[in-house]
Formats: sequence, structure tokens, C-alpha cells
Amino acid sequence: MTGAAERIERQLRFIAEIDKLKCIMRRTPLTDASRRENSAEHSWHMAIMAVLLREYAEDGVAVDHVMRLILVHDLVEIDAGDTFAYDVAANEGKAEREERAAKRLFNLLPADQAAEVRALWDEFEEGASREARYAVALDRLQPFIQNAHAGGGTWREHGVTRPQVLARMRPIETDLPTFWPFVVRTLKDAVERGWLGDDA
Amino acid sequence: MTGAAERIERQLRFIAEIDKLKCIMRRTPLTDASRRENSAEHSWHMAIMAVLLREYAEDGVAVDHVMRLILVHDLVEIDAGDTFAYDVAANEGKAEREERAAKRLFNLLPADQAAEVRALWDEFEEGASREARYAVALDRLQPFIQNAHAGGGTWREHGVTRPQVLARMRPIETDLPTFWPFVVRTLKDAVERGWLGDDA
Repeated sequence: MTGAAERIERQLRFIAEIDKLKCIMRRTPLTDASRRENSAEHSWHMAIMAVLLREYAEDGVAVDHVMRLILVHDLVEIDAGDTFAYDVAANEGKAEREERAAKRLFNLLPADQAAEVRALWDEFEEGASREARYAVALDRLQPFIQNAHAGGGTWREHGVTRPQVLARMRPIETDLPTFWPFVVRTLKDAVERGWLGDDA
Repeated sequence: MTGAAERIERQLRFIAEIDKLKCIMRRTPLTDASRRENSAEHSWHMAIMAVLLREYAEDGVAVDHVMRLILVHDLVEIDAGDTFAYDVAANEGKAEREERAAKRLFNLLPADQAAEVRALWDEFEEGASREARYAVALDRLQPFIQNAHAGGGTWREHGVTRPQVLARMRPIETDLPTFWPFVVRTLKDAVERGWLGDDA
């Protein structure tokens, strides 16, 4: 096989493999509460939000780059699974599981592209660049909106409390502050409706 | 309500509304044939393919813009439904249904963003720009890969023939020609396996 043919074959293999992200179920329900959403749907929704809400991101944020960060940010879940944010025990060992997943999955690609996807994933995980901080804030806001529409969704189902949600949503306060009043107001309303406990 | 608050409210309403794209089922199966995929998953998969296969697109294609075209290209299906490509009767009236859908959905957004999303959708539909042509080719290649992995998928289920698939895949021949030999080879193999009829 020529180098070009092998390159195409590796790209096609990776593209077929990542189809599995559509079977990684998150805890978040759809807005109509009909079922939980999967990580591919979540990634699409976040990417379109990155375009629509860019006016509220830090000045000069490169939305092009944000979309790339978002599109790849959950790929490691194909091997490592989605880890529920509020489950402390499940979050132990998450880093090691995801590291192994990144090594296997990204290396299906030609080496230059494996390095490119790895760099995007690392950047999102480190959350240091302004693009990564905006992407992380969207990663919080997207399920927040769905839980609010779905009668409390994950919060109610798992007995999560307002202080826990507020702590989880901090990236919105720091990096998408325009939406912080919406978060605070929505949580106040959720407590009043009994969807969310009010103590830590 | 201030203009800024109303703007945010409209953006949040649109973001919640487009969650419904996750319930629009396409004919294409996942690669493991476990279920059909929905249009939000399809859009995510195409967007990441746009990044990974950009070296094969026309010189100078703006991948940033391609991702935006892809993220919004199926939104009208929320009202208009997914129209099966090989169903001639269902395709009658499709343009009118989608036009009504575009008017209702996009106008949930503030006017400037409604115009922006409308322009992206029109550009994809017209398929005239190099970015739109690349996006349309990906819109063909993505389900093609899944059907090939899923034992013929849509082709076998609906008695589609090789000439029909070849005609549908023409945007790959013209705008992503590197993948045309893969398409031809895969269809020859599908005919030999009995997944696909060989006459028109």
C-alpha cells in the first residue's frame, strides 16, 4: 500500500471508530426529558452554541479553534465512558482511563493528525487558553439548559444540591459571566420547585 | 426587559429549541447497525470529518466556515423532517416544508443572527461556494461509510441499486475526488455481497 493509501485508510478507520461516541450516554436528559443524550449530540450542541454566543466570550477568542476543541473534547469517552460530574468515587481513576483511551484512539490516525487531536484534547482538559475556557463554560451551560427544561433532570434524579451545581457552574461565572444571572435565577427557581436541595 | 436581556432570552430559546434535532431520525444506521442515527449526531460527525479531511478539499477552503455550514445544515428538519434521499415522492414539497421551517426556527434568534444562520443554510443548499461543495461531499461520505460498515444498511433495507448510490455520491467524485476510488470499490464489494442491486 502506498503512503497516501495507508493515510486514507487510517483516516477512514478513525472516522468509523468515532461513530461509537453516539452510544456514550450522558446523565443529562433532552429538554423534553424523553431520554438521556449522548456525547456526540452534546458535542454538536456545544459547537453551535460556540458560534451563537461568541459575542459573550473573551475578546479575540478564535471561534474556529473553539469548535475544534469541542468536536474532539469527549472522544476519549469511547473507551473511558462518561464520568458523572457529581460522582466523586467514579471520578477517581478518570485521568488514567482517559489517558489510555487517548493513546489508543488518536493513534488510529496518521501521526501528524494524532498529534493534532491530542493537542486539542490536552488544551481543553487544561482549560488554560481563552478558547479552552470558553469551551469549558459551554460544556457547563449546555447540560444546565437541558436540566432546567427537563424539570430538574440530573439534579433531581441524583439528589444534587444547589451548592454542588453552583460549584460545577463556576466556569460560567468566570468565562461566560453574562449568563451567570441566568444560572443563579434558574437554580433559585429549581430550589423553589423542589427540583434541587438547598444544602451542601 | 432590556434589549440585552431580550437578546439573551431569544438565544437561550433557540438553543433549547434546536435540542429537537437529536430526535430527527435519519435512515442511516450506526456502524454497528444497532440503531439509526439522528441528525444532530450526523452533523457532529460531518463537522469533525471536515477538520480531518481538509487536505483533500479544494485549495484554500475555509474549514472554519465549512464547520458552520455543517452545524446548521439540518436544523430545518426539526419542523420539516428528514427526507429520505432515495424516495422521489417524499422529496416533492421538501423545499416548501424546509422554507417554512427555516422561517419559524431561525427567527427565534435575534434578527442579525437569524440572517446569519439563514445565509449559512442557503449557502449549503445552493452548494455553489467551495466550502458548501466540500460540506455537501461530506454529507454524502459520512452515511456512505456507515452503510458500508453496517452490512449495506439503508441500501439493503430499501432495495437501492448501485446506479442510484453512484448518482447520489457524485459530489464526492467532483469535490472530494480522492475518495471516489473508495466509493467505487466499496459499491463493487457491496454488489458482490448481495447488499446492493446492480441495475437501475
